[in-house]
Amino acid sequence: MRRVLKAAILGSTGLVGIEYVRMLANHPYIKVAYLAGKGSVGKPYGEVVRWQTIGQIPKEVANMEIKPTDPKLMDDVDLVFSPLPAGAAGPVEEEFAKHGFKVISDSPDHRFEPDIPLLIPEINPHTITLIDEQRKKRDWKGFIVTTPLCAAQGVLLPLAPIYQNFKVDSVFITTMQAVSGEGYPGVASLDIIDNIKVLGENYDNKLIKEVHRVLSETKRNVNDSGNDVTLSATTHRVATIHGHYEIIYVTFKEDVNVEKVREAMDNFKGEPQNLKLPTAPSKPIILTNEDSRPQVYFDRWAGEIPGMSVVVGRLSQVNRRAIRFASLIHNTVRGAAGGGILATEFLVEKGYMD
Amino acid sequence: MRRVLKAAILGSTGLVGIEYVRMLANHPYIKVAYLAGKGSVGKPYGEVVRWQTIGQIPKEVANMEIKPTDPKLMDDVDLVFSPLPAGAAGPVEEEFAKHGFKVISDSPDHRFEPDIPLLIPEINPHTITLIDEQRKKRDWKGFIVTTPLCAAQGVLLPLAPIYQNFKVDSVFITTMQAVSGEGYPGVASLDIIDNIKVLGENYDNKLIKEVHRVLSETKRNVNDSGNDVTLSATTHRVATIHGHYEIIYVTFKEDVNVEKVREAMDNFKGEPQNLKLPTAPSKPIILTNEDSRPQVYFDRWAGEIPGMSVVVGRLSQVNRRAIRFASLIHNTVRGAAGGGILATEFLVEKGYMD
Amino acid sequence: MRRVLKAAILGSTGLVGIEYVRMLANHPYIKVAYLAGKGSVGKPYGEVVRWQTIGQIPKEVANMEIKPTDPKLMDDVDLVFSPLPAGAAGPVEEEFAKHGFKVISDSPDHRFEPDIPLLIPEINPHTITLIDEQRKKRDWKGFIVTTPLCAAQGVLLPLAPIYQNFKVDSVFITTMQAVSGEGYPGVASLDIIDNIKVLGENYDNKLIKEVHRVLSETKRNVNDSGNDVTLSATTHRVATIHGHYEIIYVTFKEDVNVEKVREAMDNFKGEPQNLKLPTAPSKPIILTNEDSRPQVYFDRWAGEIPGMSVVVGRLSQVNRRAIRFASLIHNTVRGAAGGGILATEFLVEKGYMD
Amino acid sequence: MRRVLKAAILGSTGLVGIEYVRMLANHPYIKVAYLAGKGSVGKPYGEVVRWQTIGQIPKEVANMEIKPTDPKLMDDVDLVFSPLPAGAAGPVEEEFAKHGFKVISDSPDHRFEPDIPLLIPEINPHTITLIDEQRKKRDWKGFIVTTPLCAAQGVLLPLAPIYQNFKVDSVFITTMQAVSGEGYPGVASLDIIDNIKVLGENYDNKLIKEVHRVLSETKRNVNDSGNDVTLSATTHRVATIHGHYEIIYVTFKEDVNVEKVREAMDNFKGEPQNLKLPTAPSKPIILTNEDSRPQVYFDRWAGEIPGMSVVVGRLSQVNRRAIRFASLIHNTVRGAAGGGILATEFLVEKGYMD
Ligand SMILES: NC(=O)c1ccc[n+]([C@@H]2O[C@H](COP(=O)([O-])OP(=O)(O)OC[C@H]3O[C@@H](n4cnc5c(N)ncnc54)[C@H](OP(=O)(O)O)[C@@H]3O)[C@@H](O)[C@H]2O)c1
Ligand SMILES: NC(=O)c1ccc[n+]([C@@H]2O[C@H](COP(=O)([O-])OP(=O)(O)OC[C@H]3O[C@@H](n4cnc5c(N)ncnc54)[C@H](OP(=O)(O)O)[C@@H]3O)[C@@H](O)[C@H]2O)c1
Ligand SMILES: NC(=O)c1ccc[n+]([C@@H]2O[C@H](COP(=O)([O-])OP(=O)(O)OC[C@H]3O[C@@H](n4cnc5c(N)ncnc54)[C@H](OP(=O)(O)O)[C@@H]3O)[C@@H](O)[C@H]2O)c1
Ligand SMILES: NC(=O)c1ccc[n+]([C@@H]2O[C@H](COP(=O)([O-])OP(=O)(O)OC[C@H]3O[C@@H](n4cnc5c(N)ncnc54)[C@H](OP(=O)(O)O)[C@@H]3O)[C@@H](O)[C@H]2O)c1
Repeated sequence: MRRVLKAAILGSTGLVGIEYVRMLANHPYIKVAYLAGKGSVGKPYGEVVRWQTIGQIPKEVANMEIKPTDPKLMDDVDLVFSPLPAGAAGPVEEEFAKHGFKVISDSPDHRFEPDIPLLIPEINPHTITLIDEQRKKRDWKGFIVTTPLCAAQGVLLPLAPIYQNFKVDSVFITTMQAVSGEGYPGVASLDIIDNIKVLGENYDNKLIKEVHRVLSETKRNVNDSGNDVTLSATTHRVATIHGHYEIIYVTFKEDVNVEKVREAMDNFKGEPQNLKLPTAPSKPIILTNEDSRPQVYFDRWAGEIPGMSVVVGRLSQVNRRAIRFASLIHNTVRGAAGGGILATEFLVEKGYMD
Repeated sequence: MRRVLKAAILGSTGLVGIEYVRMLANHPYIKVAYLAGKGSVGKPYGEVVRWQTIGQIPKEVANMEIKPTDPKLMDDVDLVFSPLPAGAAGPVEEEFAKHGFKVISDSPDHRFEPDIPLLIPEINPHTITLIDEQRKKRDWKGFIVTTPLCAAQGVLLPLAPIYQNFKVDSVFITTMQAVSGEGYPGVASLDIIDNIKVLGENYDNKLIKEVHRVLSETKRNVNDSGNDVTLSATTHRVATIHGHYEIIYVTFKEDVNVEKVREAMDNFKGEPQNLKLPTAPSKPIILTNEDSRPQVYFDRWAGEIPGMSVVVGRLSQVNRRAIRFASLIHNTVRGAAGGGILATEFLVEKGYMD
Repeated sequence: MRRVLKAAILGSTGLVGIEYVRMLANHPYIKVAYLAGKGSVGKPYGEVVRWQTIGQIPKEVANMEIKPTDPKLMDDVDLVFSPLPAGAAGPVEEEFAKHGFKVISDSPDHRFEPDIPLLIPEINPHTITLIDEQRKKRDWKGFIVTTPLCAAQGVLLPLAPIYQNFKVDSVFITTMQAVSGEGYPGVASLDIIDNIKVLGENYDNKLIKEVHRVLSETKRNVNDSGNDVTLSATTHRVATIHGHYEIIYVTFKEDVNVEKVREAMDNFKGEPQNLKLPTAPSKPIILTNEDSRPQVYFDRWAGEIPGMSVVVGRLSQVNRRAIRFASLIHNTVRGAAGGGILATEFLVEKGYMD
Repeated sequence: MRRVLKAAILGSTGLVGIEYVRMLANHPYIKVAYLAGKGSVGKPYGEVVRWQTIGQIPKEVANMEIKPTDPKLMDDVDLVFSPLPAGAAGPVEEEFAKHGFKVISDSPDHRFEPDIPLLIPEINPHTITLIDEQRKKRDWKGFIVTTPLCAAQGVLLPLAPIYQNFKVDSVFITTMQAVSGEGYPGVASLDIIDNIKVLGENYDNKLIKEVHRVLSETKRNVNDSGNDVTLSATTHRVATIHGHYEIIYVTFKEDVNVEKVREAMDNFKGEPQNLKLPTAPSKPIILTNEDSRPQVYFDRWAGEIPGMSVVVGRLSQVNRRAIRFASLIHNTVRGAAGGGILATEFLVEKGYMD
């Protein structure tokens, strides 16, 4: 039996925060010990939270009081999940790390620092050793580990087995993302009723840059540096609540058989599966052959650990050197809270949480 | 002054039918003389029509009675617009052509017959000579001319100037189409609230096949047969009422400068513009440089003839041999009724309506 | 321990059918033995069903084959749940009853026959004795019991304690109902995006008529016949998936204190609660005092048996003889499948299922 | 011919501001001379405005620069339309009035001051004499006139002829309002996709209070003080862009024949109609007998001056002393900008704009 870890959830009333609360309610060894917020401080969690997810508010947290986001009040806490808004997150997370806390962040503020892991445990597990470097360099007792942008994870999980096994030339991504991806209040209804919200170049580039970093940290089985992969994304929000849906075209430097690609995806596994981590789905990629799937409403909660698997469908051969597929990721689960919990479990196994 | 042409509109209560009614209300020489329907026969137009478009029902048609879809009742009619449902359209249109009527069809039933034009007057105007062949071969006094699938036109209009001037290698299309594209009742609300409806392989292929046919009829300025262009499409409906939005990636066989592509699009004109046809927009392609445009709600009615121009934006260089852009077409206007009227005006100029 | 009852679910792939499947998956003594359908006959349930509800398709039914709606194939079945479409249901249900089956119907076809119960077990439990009459009169070995229209149940559950305890004069109802209430495909997306669908007089009257019948079967504690209660409804669909939301104004023949009304609602219980039936929520009416609740998205699955309680809020005194409240009912659960299961459990207790 | 009035539009980029711009583009004697804003100051109107209405941005304003909201910069301006946000509007409008400007306000900040008219020219025209009182009391050269809350106008316009001619006892209102009613960004998409947003008691009461004030200023033809009318409202937003839809139950102190009510509504006219003001619809109330109308999407722009008439339908007798109807008002047109322009035209006729 593992030692119980006591966790604080920052931004606990947010769209990512509620998924941490939901998923940790039955976790074998991580317990919610502290719920932090900002505007809602002082109120009982169950009264103020917008519970925009499945199931009901767990009884054990409904009456917990929301407390300030202050490391000095968290004596009893072993680790800190930080789904704080961009901008606010950066300094807060550094302060926590300085105070000795292990911080798992879903915010974008530290995603491009070379000594801070941008971790998907199935894809770039070895990057956790950056923690040692980070602590040394920054003289921190604690540390920060980040998870990538939800939409980037929806690309990376299905792309990883392809990139590992084939000589990829270009990746062209078109996204249709859910409104919950911008938090609350987030997307204005006037932007999304009878409309598609164009996210624009900055967002496109953010997505690409994160995919680039994680790909560059992916070990390959093919004799090809992979350095010159072209990546492009065109990003949008549509009127869906949860679930980012993305159409991905991949071209290759040599002929590729789509059945081999399917096999690679189907067999895709990583350390979380090998280690049987509690929040690891047995299949990080669920493949569907149905012509009209994945669909956001019906598939975003797929898998034995709902929302932790990416659902891939529409996989087909475009020409000898090109394939196409659709990927659906639950943005606040695998794309945020679930990814954060999985990262934590992996760090536990590797001794970083002791 | 042109001779006035008396038109019958089949399927006049449908989503395409109402655009014919709206656009012809002020047409200089085409007058609505007969409104045909099926379930609504016998009722006053203004009472039964679902007027799901801009403006109000034109006074002159509000009290017209809807009549049967029967060539024998249309003595007084010069030409027939046929936005009939797939399947129903085929035999009806042939009967009309046999009876000597000039039929302009938006239905899919005759889009792949080699002697029937699939016409976008800006792109493949010379294909109208197929009419002569058609009449001879089929021994028809009338004829049938068709317009392509709305979503295909949204690809073809911006693609034409590219295809004409550059050596295109592949075209990867992802669509987010409006629900009105399936007619009424069409898309179930349960498929589209908090969901994206995947249209699937058949629809993908239909789109590709139509783009293929029209491209193959496009005259090129480049020294390249264009025969081996790869086309792929992934098609969806999202919760928008009108306006098909499509993200298009184009790769080339040689280096291409996106600014040259922009220029080619910006200068794109065809016979309708040269002939100053009444329903021809001065610019078939409206280019926007705004980072967040086109947007369906704000741009689908763009142009001095609302809905007759395709709005293209997000045009950018992906790498030396690839570009990306977004295209927005009003599906029931340029993609159907407006396209049909423009085709008619062109046929008038070329003497096919005498 | 109760004897296990083997149930057939007609219309098992429909929106109500799936709730029967979901709720019976863990039922203590009712087991799904037969899944019937029409268009989907012959296919594995898990492959064809549109699972538009919470949770995942129960493993034990995913591979069951969908079978014809034919009593002769159901040797092994004890009772039949019938969420069949209006029109189709009538003759089918009679045939089943004739063949000796106990039929619990959510369809409207037999809701106004005086010898067929229209049952909400909390409100008019004694009407089950109509079964005896029914069997005698019709010479059936089986029987039919029906449940009221979902929207009527959303009125009746909160109205019952008011009607029982106060002298009601008028009830004015305005509904905002979910699209799933019309089944699949049901409501056209073109009727509901950026629109409110008006259901019209027929539907208004249907609702009123059912409320009337059940009220007239409700035992009262007040010295007032209640015969002359005015009922009026104005009914609509809005763009929500599940959950009928209704605003109800009630006027009285004498002064009424809203706090007494609140108490009556809060204390409301019936036979299902007294008998602790497995699917009976401890509170059929959940009262909320929050100013902005109930809300469809957040409250439709409320209660310890999700979707089995009506959530009532916005209760307030309008003047000395009028009050106002909002009622939210899960249309396919309490308003259909859940109501059917609860009715069955009650019939079991009363010996009608032996 | 009237003297041309030069108008400034404050909040010109807002949802109400754009309707002022649209409606004044072709006004016979009011010209847009100054476009004011806040965040958008310094930019060309056509570049920054979210044109969420019909038609296209009028050419003559597209290149106008947005300027500060400062009376000192408006030498050349005769009157000021003020659709400013609540809170911001109050002091700004007073400053303008002090500086001698005639201010027509759609904001809520001065709606309950006894010397400031809350004007619907068809209903309480005589209240414009409050202007004289206002000027004297406040020592202002200019003045402020306000228009009621959009949702209140949707009640008041159909209620006025009823109140004038019958002894009303109670009015029970349930609203389904469009998201544009909260401005931009306004309603969060997460509150409105698959949900109904409950506006709550404050909003309910605001609506009631405004209806109360205007009713109390309405001249009656019946021998009844009308002081004791009960008003109650339950208010919501649903996923519609424009158009507030309201179900209204009215009870009376004596028997009332709904046909007489219909007649009163149908004949309803006021000063704007008598004076043939340019923006006055010939019928302020358009009555429809169709069972499924009014519908938001199809009727919000009804009338020869689109959006200036309230569409009333579903009118029916509930019992001898109660009726019911549905009212649809275009919130940003009749409910704001159009109401403001009509008020101005009326003030012009009465000499208040000289
Ligand atoms: N939504 C997604 O799909 C998604 C996916 C991946 C990553 N992320 C990232 O996760 C983070 C959170 O996103 P979200 O969607 O959960 O946001 P959200 O719904 O807007 O929630 C924000 C949370 O942060 C708290 N908060 C806000 N400002 C704060 C401050 N200055 N100090 C402390 N707490 C503060 C709020 O507390 P109060 O309610 O008490 O004010 C609330 O709990 C963002 O960085 C986002 O980029 C989101
Ligand atoms: N919607 C688009 O964006 C779009 C774009 C390009 C092409 N198209 C094509 O245009 C055609 C019409 O589409 P739509 O969206 O306008 O369809 P729709 O809204 O469903 O309208 C169908 C029309 O056809 C009439 N009709 C139906 N069955 C008929 C029959 N057997 N004989 C005669 N009339 C019949 C109906 O009349 P009643 O109402 O009297 O029954 C109605 O007027 C289809 O072929 C479609 O593929 C549509
Ligand atoms: N939806 C609600 O909120 C609600 C609430 C209360 C009561 N109801 C009532 O419940 C009934 C079902 O509603 P629903 O919403 O579940 O409808 P639905 O989603 O349209 O499902 C209809 C079901 O009935 C089957 N079916 C259709 N025609 C049939 C026939 N002729 N014979 C045998 N089976 C047939 C279909 O099977 P296949 O798929 O195999 O074709 C499908 O399983 C209706 O009477 C409705 O009024 C519904
Ligand atoms: N929407 C309706 O249906 C409706 C109906 C009746 C009445 N009203 C009332 O009309 C008013 C405007 O509503 P709306 O929906 O048009 O709002 P909106 O869309 O949010 O627009 C607000 C406008 O006010 C400007 N603005 C914001 N703060 C300002 C300040 N401090 N000083 C000067 N200008 C400022 C903005 O300019 P920038 O864009 O330059 O920042 C924008 O032009 C509100 O009082 C509302 O209650 C609205």
